[in-house]
Amino acid sequence: MKMYQQSITLPKARRGFHLITSAILHGAPGIRDFRKGLCQVFIQHTSASLSINENADPTVRADFETWFNKAVPENDPDYRHDLEGPDDMPAHIKASLLGSSVLIPIVDGRLGLGTWQGIYLCEHRDHGEARNVLVTCWGE
Amino acid sequence: MKMYQQSITLPKARRGFHLITSAILHGAPGIRDFRKGLCQVFIQHTSASLSINENADPTVRADFETWFNKAVPENDPDYRHDLEGPDDMPAHIKASLLGSSVLIPIVDGRLGLGTWQGIYLCEHRDHGEARNVLVTCWGE
Amino acid sequence: MKMYQQSITLPKARRGFHLITSAILHGAPGIRDFRKGLCQVFIQHTSASLSINENADPTVRADFETWFNKAVPENDPDYRHDLEGPDDMPAHIKASLLGSSVLIPIVDGRLGLGTWQGIYLCEHRDHGEARNVLVTCWGE
Repeated sequence: MKMYQQSITLPKARRGFHLITSAILHGAPGIRDFRKGLCQVFIQHTSASLSINENADPTVRADFETWFNKAVPENDPDYRHDLEGPDDMPAHIKASLLGSSVLIPIVDGRLGLGTWQGIYLCEHRDHGEARNVLVTCWGE
Repeated sequence: MKMYQQSITLPKARRGFHLITSAILHGAPGIRDFRKGLCQVFIQHTSASLSINENADPTVRADFETWFNKAVPENDPDYRHDLEGPDDMPAHIKASLLGSSVLIPIVDGRLGLGTWQGIYLCEHRDHGEARNVLVTCWGE
Repeated sequence: MKMYQQSITLPKARRGFHLITSAILHGAPGIRDFRKGLCQVFIQHTSASLSINENADPTVRADFETWFNKAVPENDPDYRHDLEGPDDMPAHIKASLLGSSVLIPIVDGRLGLGTWQGIYLCEHRDHGEARNVLVTCWGE
């Protein structure tokens, strides 16, 4: 068994849900050197997150943004952490609901995703920065 | 260290939360060949998900369905992705809230779950298909 | 590649969100023996969970408690699992929303967390017990 680690900087993205499967595969070409293994993508931030979901219809990603904005409202008067703007505390909560990493099996040198699965960058800030992700793979 | 990978097809399940710990152990008997390691179960779909929760009282699983149906309502007029029926977009959101995989330590040839923990298949579609999961284990 | 596994008992915590990064590093000193690898922390309970989020401002953790209590209300008359008190069923749901484990890359003998990331113990019961976590690391 061997291990591979690659840091990738994803360019600034607008608030919302974005497909990054190709960006990960291009930024971490070592993924294809594993016949059988695992690939973790980990985001080193607390107001953006990663998820796996539908990779074809952009309205799915738009509806994710709609639902999360209703479920985690801005400007709740009960929030105490509000110095960085109304989108800040909701961004932290959304990030924990979705999680800071995805873990995907590698099968025959490819990510073992289902036909309709892609990796999402979930940018929860109005003006998020470039986001660092660490890709770590291990296996045979 | 060694690695083991096994694909399992879970039969069609009705909408709701289902215990699949035994199905995983039977479908991936190689789990018990690891003294110390990790076991990932990954679901290759975007409208069903996996989670770990209470394994004894079926009313817990029923209450999960109740809560998720209230929290992620069908027929929100703001959804744009609705061609496949009212349960489709909510299914995608529920799937990302719960996640597409669980990762469980292996201790002495057994899943290192707590006494009350079991693996749930979370089927979010009214008429879901059979679901493919990939089990990947690594360790000593 | 090598593997390391360590069980840690976290002392009883009050209901809420608690930073445990230091407790994990002290309880599992073997983490620092990996130059490149992964570290999983897994909680063996169904009414407490783990997450990664902001490690500096305690009001963030307070606001997490506020949001989760509104999003997953107690005493919903539709809950059927209520024998262990009004905080029991919501605790199970919160635990699955956040997840039973976190998985963090190891880079040069340290957890590869971003500057503002810390590990949270999310205690969802009013009177939770001491909580067992299993730390498993693998890599070079």
